[in-house]
Parts: sequence; C-alpha cells; structure tokens
Amino acid sequence: MKPYVIGIDMGGTNTVSGIVDARGTVIDVDTIKTATYAHVEDYVDALCHSVICLMKRNDALDKIAGIGVGAPNANYFTGEIEQAANLPWKGAIPLARMLNERLHLPVAMTNDANAAAIGEMTYGAARGVKDFIMITLGTGVGSGVVANGRLIYGHDGNAGELGHIIVQRGGRLCGCGRRGCLEAYTSATGLARTAREYLELRDTPSSLRAIPMQDITSRDVYDAAIAGDMLAKEIFEYTGKILGEAFADFVAFTGPRMIVLFGGLARAGELLLQPTKKYMEANLLPFYRDRVEIVLSRLNEADAAILGAAALGWEAE
Amino acid sequence: MKPYVIGIDMGGTNTVSGIVDARGTVIDVDTIKTATYAHVEDYVDALCHSVICLMKRNDALDKIAGIGVGAPNANYFTGEIEQAANLPWKGAIPLARMLNERLHLPVAMTNDANAAAIGEMTYGAARGVKDFIMITLGTGVGSGVVANGRLIYGHDGNAGELGHIIVQRGGRLCGCGRRGCLEAYTSATGLARTAREYLELRDTPSSLRAIPMQDITSRDVYDAAIAGDMLAKEIFEYTGKILGEAFADFVAFTGPRMIVLFGGLARAGELLLQPTKKYMEANLLPFYRDRVEIVLSRLNEADAAILGAAALGWEAE
Repeated sequence: MKPYVIGIDMGGTNTVSGIVDARGTVIDVDTIKTATYAHVEDYVDALCHSVICLMKRNDALDKIAGIGVGAPNANYFTGEIEQAANLPWKGAIPLARMLNERLHLPVAMTNDANAAAIGEMTYGAARGVKDFIMITLGTGVGSGVVANGRLIYGHDGNAGELGHIIVQRGGRLCGCGRRGCLEAYTSATGLARTAREYLELRDTPSSLRAIPMQDITSRDVYDAAIAGDMLAKEIFEYTGKILGEAFADFVAFTGPRMIVLFGGLARAGELLLQPTKKYMEANLLPFYRDRVEIVLSRLNEADAAILGAAALGWEAE
Repeated sequence: MKPYVIGIDMGGTNTVSGIVDARGTVIDVDTIKTATYAHVEDYVDALCHSVICLMKRNDALDKIAGIGVGAPNANYFTGEIEQAANLPWKGAIPLARMLNERLHLPVAMTNDANAAAIGEMTYGAARGVKDFIMITLGTGVGSGVVANGRLIYGHDGNAGELGHIIVQRGGRLCGCGRRGCLEAYTSATGLARTAREYLELRDTPSSLRAIPMQDITSRDVYDAAIAGDMLAKEIFEYTGKILGEAFADFVAFTGPRMIVLFGGLARAGELLLQPTKKYMEANLLPFYRDRVEIVLSRLNEADAAILGAAALGWEAE
C-alpha cells in the first residue's frame, strides 16, 4: 500500500494542498490563491502544478494512494462542485474528473463539513466511533453525519445539512432564504446577532456596549464573557440552549455515541459546551440521557481541513 | 440457501408467526395470545411450539434460513426487549437468545418500526432504494431510517425515534413525558386531539359535533372529511402541515430519496398526503425541492408486520 495521500482544502480565498501519512501527520503543504484565476481550467492547472511540486519535493511521486478534496458544495457522488456562492466560476465544475485526468490518481471529493467528519473519524476524537455527528460552528453551521461507520451522503450527495434544520419556525432570516435555521442562531455570526439583539432589547450594563454595534464579533462576546460580563455569559447560555435543544432531536434521529464540535465558535470551550450539554440532557428522551458525549474536535485547527480531505483520499478509487 | 424465513410479530395482545418465502409471500401463519402467560418462559415455550407447528405443517422443518422478530422496545444489538410498557413481563427479556436456544435457528430482532422499514426495503415500496425514511402513523409515530442501504440502529440500538422530535417547543404533552413531540400531533391519537381542540375553540358547524367529544377517533375525522366536512378537512390540513414541516427537516438530515408512510393514519391517503407534500416542499432547502417522494407503503397491511420481521430473518446469523 502506498504510504501517503494528498488532501486538498479548497476555500474561496486559498487552496491548500497537503501531503499526509497514515497516522495523520501533515508532512508538507503548498498553497495557491483560489480567486485569482478567471477560468477554472487555469485554476486546475495551477493546482496540479502545486500538487506535483509538493510530491516532487517530498520524493513522493509514486507514493500517493489517492487525493481527497474538501470544497464548498462538493458532491461526493458526482465529483462536481455545484453552484458554490463564494467561488469565481459559475455552473457545475467537474473538479474530481479534471484532477484525475491531469494527475492520474484516484480523486474523491466532498464538502468541507463532511471532510471534517471523515477527518475526525480517521485521525481525531471519533477514531473508531461508528455513530457520531460532527458539527462545525463557523461563519455558518455545517455537519457530517456518520452511522454504521459510514458517512451519510444521502440519495444524491446532499445529506447532512443540519445547520438548516428549523429551530424556530418563523424565526431569524437565514442566508438560505428561509427563517429560523439553526445556523442563524448558533454560528459565530448567529451568536454576534444574538449579542446585538440583547444589547438593543435590554438595558443591562455590558462591556460590549463600548464596541460599535455592527462591529461586534463572536470573539468580542467570548472575551467579555471570560472577563465576567454577565450579558455576554447570557448570550453563550442562549446559544447553548438552542444548540442543546437541537442536539436532543439529532440524537433521536441517528442515535450517535458522540457529537463533535469544530470550528471558530467551538474554541469557546466550556463557555459553550456547558449550556449545550445541560439543555441537550434536559430535552433528551429519557432512555438517551447520560449516554451521549459532546466533545471538542481533536484535530489541530491549522491542519484539520487538510486532514479531513486527506482522510477521504484513502477511500478514493 | 434455505427457501423460507419465519417472521414473528409480537404485540401486546397477539403474537403472530408467519412462514415467508424470498418473494414476500406469507405462506401460513399461527397466532398465540401474548398476555395470557404470567411467566416469560411459558410464553416463549408456547411461541416455540407455535413456530414448530407452523414449520411441520408446511413441511419446512429444515428449510428455514432464520427467524426475525419485530417487538416493542426490542434492541437489535442485545436481542433483548427493554422495559416494554405494554407487555406483562418486567425487566429486560433476552428473547433472541431464548428462541435461539430452543429452536436452534439464527434469530434477529428489532422494534416494530425498524422491522417495517426493512420489510418495505425487502418487499415493498422501497425495494432497491438505499436512502429512505419509513414513518408509521398509528397510535404513536414510529420510524425507521435507512441510509447507505442499511438501517440506522445507532450507537446502542435506539436510533430512529422521529416521533419524538420536538415540533413545537412547550407544545402538547406527549406520552414520553416531554412536550411538543411530532407524535402528539401526527399520530392517529394526535389527529383526534386536534379535532377536539378545533371543536372546542371554534364554532364552525361540523358533523363531528354529533359525536361525543371524547369518543372522536381519526376514523371519524376521515369519514367527515371525505363527506365534505370543512372542519374535518382543516384538521387533516393542519396535521399535514406539521408532518410536512418535520419532513423538510428530516430530508436535510439523511437526504432520502423517499419517505414511506405506513399505519392507520396513512390509510387517509391523499387527504393527508396532499398537505404533507405541500408543506414539505414549501419548507425544504431550495436544492432538495422536487427531489423527494412521499409514498404510501406497498405492503398489504395484514401481512406487513410479519413481512417486516421476516425480512430481518434473512439477515439473522
């Protein structure tokens, strides 16, 4: 068996390729700018050049088992990127085929959140766990659902959109055009939105009032909460409540052993974990109580996206 | 390969065993009363006697590939029935082991709703479908979730409790002790409850007013709706709305190709299907729209429970 895989993390700004071994060590990386290429062909040529450089300088030209790609709106079944809002190219992009034709290596592709789940299962907190749910709390809320040891892609590759489960019917407007999605409340952006609502509707004193309303970020709320600001703590409590209530429903769906949190907001640690656990337990069906762990990702954040994509590379055929 | 399986449908009142071939023909059945046995050992002896009679009279003593059991609160992993409220015996009952020791045949066991899903996948509307959700609308709301061609049992055998997803926080009290579960609205009992609420809160004329309030059943509401009663139609519309909204969330979870409806309330057909489809579509994330079918079970209702259990029998080892 070949000893390495290539993991490619494709973002709107940068595309980072990494060479990774079976234990999850990121041996070397190479980065190109995603958005500078007007034509997708030019982008793919540059990406292939970057990958070949990476292989050459690590003496690994014939040691690669496969390539895994994590990309926004990537479909595992078709190997295409479908209507990704933050990429410069329009229409469906058959990236898996394009890479395969140029590099002559098997390529597997999925969206970022699914890649993160596979990374966690292969190298992280969910190693050996056959039933778990990965939740990424970043600008949006993404998810990857694993059951029976396999990621659930669904009938046409679009399963696992738990960020768009409705938690409040008729609630906050979400980026997807609907109202009340989990993402509108528990993403980093959602938490900042809660902060603005709280500051507007209440007159409790808070250190957050020193920041211009529109500039408040989840990081500001975190800093304030850690410094003891009561309103900031309440904002985390509320976010954990919405998340915990949603998790209680998620558990009734696939009966996971654990829920793994990842992404910017997960860095808040206990501040978010504590209320999330409390409200999940309070809302679970009795026979699920005290049986489901909520844990933080164990992947090094700098490497996580590469590792997730790389883990998929082992499955590429 | 042996040509038959035994399917056992264990209910609180009757336990029906059937001998079934690979095409899903129920060749013969035998029934015993469940609740007449004070000791579980006596019940199991009687059940084994019933199964042996069934095999003998069909000349199938050495033609059985396995036994499948569908039972309330049955756990696939442990082969035990756990705290079933409507069975006369207390504690965990290791039914799979007890049957295996007496009959020397492989036994697999799961709960009724999961068995129905496996039956639908093997013999019914979901034949060959790898991603679907089965919803049983009876006294309660049960479910079986299939992804990647396999039933999701979850980490400890308790997955797929979609009847207890919260659809209205702080809403109706459910039999599980919590509030606002799907089951409290969209089971046959839930629909009758909606009828009582509507009759009490409104003064619209309705043929349902001729029935004593506490006696109203989902069947009465169905008959009234079919006869053109406007209030009865509204009750189905409301039930379909709650169901359709919930289905939109379910789709975002496992990305199924279809949702199969089964059980007493599913017999209402278009009266329920039409609003359910409408509200599901209206609440789906855009890229799921017009991609998910809602269909009625294609299993003959009299045989369905046996067929579900029997289908599991092929998997027993």
